[in-house]
Amino acid sequence: MGLWFTEKQTENFGITAKIKQTYHTEQTDYQKLDMVETAEWGNMLLLDDMVMTTEKDEFVYHEMVAHVPLFTHPNPKEVLVVGGGDGGVIREILKHPSVTKAVLVDIDGKVIEYAKKYLPSIAGKLDDPLVEVRVADGFMHIAESEKAYDVILVDSTEPVGPAVNLFTKGFYAGIASALKDDGIFVAQTDNPWFKADLIRQVYADVKEIFPVTRLYTANIPTYPSGLWTFTIGSKIHDPLKVKEDRFFEIETKYYTKQLHHACFVLPKFVEDLTV
Amino acid sequence: MGLWFTEKQTENFGITAKIKQTYHTEQTDYQKLDMVETAEWGNMLLLDDMVMTTEKDEFVYHEMVAHVPLFTHPNPKEVLVVGGGDGGVIREILKHPSVTKAVLVDIDGKVIEYAKKYLPSIAGKLDDPLVEVRVADGFMHIAESEKAYDVILVDSTEPVGPAVNLFTKGFYAGIASALKDDGIFVAQTDNPWFKADLIRQVYADVKEIFPVTRLYTANIPTYPSGLWTFTIGSKIHDPLKVKEDRFFEIETKYYTKQLHHACFVLPKFVEDLTV
Repeated sequence: MGLWFTEKQTENFGITAKIKQTYHTEQTDYQKLDMVETAEWGNMLLLDDMVMTTEKDEFVYHEMVAHVPLFTHPNPKEVLVVGGGDGGVIREILKHPSVTKAVLVDIDGKVIEYAKKYLPSIAGKLDDPLVEVRVADGFMHIAESEKAYDVILVDSTEPVGPAVNLFTKGFYAGIASALKDDGIFVAQTDNPWFKADLIRQVYADVKEIFPVTRLYTANIPTYPSGLWTFTIGSKIHDPLKVKEDRFFEIETKYYTKQLHHACFVLPKFVEDLTV
Repeated sequence: MGLWFTEKQTENFGITAKIKQTYHTEQTDYQKLDMVETAEWGNMLLLDDMVMTTEKDEFVYHEMVAHVPLFTHPNPKEVLVVGGGDGGVIREILKHPSVTKAVLVDIDGKVIEYAKKYLPSIAGKLDDPLVEVRVADGFMHIAESEKAYDVILVDSTEPVGPAVNLFTKGFYAGIASALKDDGIFVAQTDNPWFKADLIRQVYADVKEIFPVTRLYTANIPTYPSGLWTFTIGSKIHDPLKVKEDRFFEIETKYYTKQLHHACFVLPKFVEDLTV
């Protein structure tokens, strides 16, 4: 059989993948980092033994976290990514020609360093002149920003370890202050099969702060349950009311303008988490 | 750790689940059958070491394979299930009051027997007076039927072993003959991450025979990649043109009338398999 990696996605369930080689393993100041080559998914980044991204399926997460809010905002110029040190979200943001500045704030510089080395198709745009990379605490950066961004994308790890602050109402209130008057934000909010309570809580918290709150999903095969959710908070612009002429052609493998609307139509047991 | 089951969904990737107990293991005349209790998913049926259904997530598959075609047909009376010995599809069919007869043809009587014993919440409607259960070859039953059914649901195993005939153009032609003049059928057609070629082939084959051909998806966490496809072939009725007044309230956990339409909006890489 050879070497296999297993992630326990819950106490009693997990995924397993054949490993061709391990490029790097390190306990950084914030988390355990593993960069491996898998036979099925290409190169894979793990943080604290959880799959963060793989070369084969990364396009789903990165396209869906970026393009839904960026097409919702009529003219996104200044965009912030909290987390997202692998650079995949930045790559997608730069497909929007209105963007003049994309700031990435990741607390762990090692993620950025090893993504550049082993995930070049994902991290390749981190050196773009429009991009500003800061190795810093995203929570603090948000707290210090005032009406600075059109769109904020929270590409965090799970709500354990360094990202625990990023799932609090205080953080969402900070995001509201850091956004301009017609700003919009999105956060990855885990899966509805194993983390229903988390989704329900985040949705309720965001709804107390943002006039427009929406939940959407995408299929990410290497994430728990294969069904991932994203929660949007927006001051004005509604992702369900984007006009047809706002959309323009971009190269994608998952996102389409039709899916922009359809991804908000939820399975009943997921819809029930939002009421 | 205790006892864990692992399914290799591809040569290099799989899922693993903690087993609380094994109720039954048998090599039937057609396949290996295991009925186990898992800690995460409740009781689980395996055929040839592949997960067929679990108590916790079975509702997705059974609702989505049944209600999309049954709400598309304006007045489904006689309905056939090919395979589906666990009875979950039958349970969903019986939520439609127009149905006067639901025939289940599964080649393996052992699946029916052990589903009744260990999956009562799934198989509980197999003894309903509207249901006729036949232990027989679905391919042959289709070949012998002429304009007999309004809706045919193909709830097969994977295209290896006993179900290999159920993924052929000859079978789809047989289905067309077995359906009435405004009949509709659906087949489960595996996942787009690992079986793209199969989906493309089935879609092309069905399209040569049926005027209306459509592909839709659902999230099934215990199936490979979590994203499952279903292919519809229909003589007249289009699932995308169901009138609002056709829908009525039924109890579901996944299907909604909004999702009836949204499930046909495909990720781009899946849409590309249909052109």
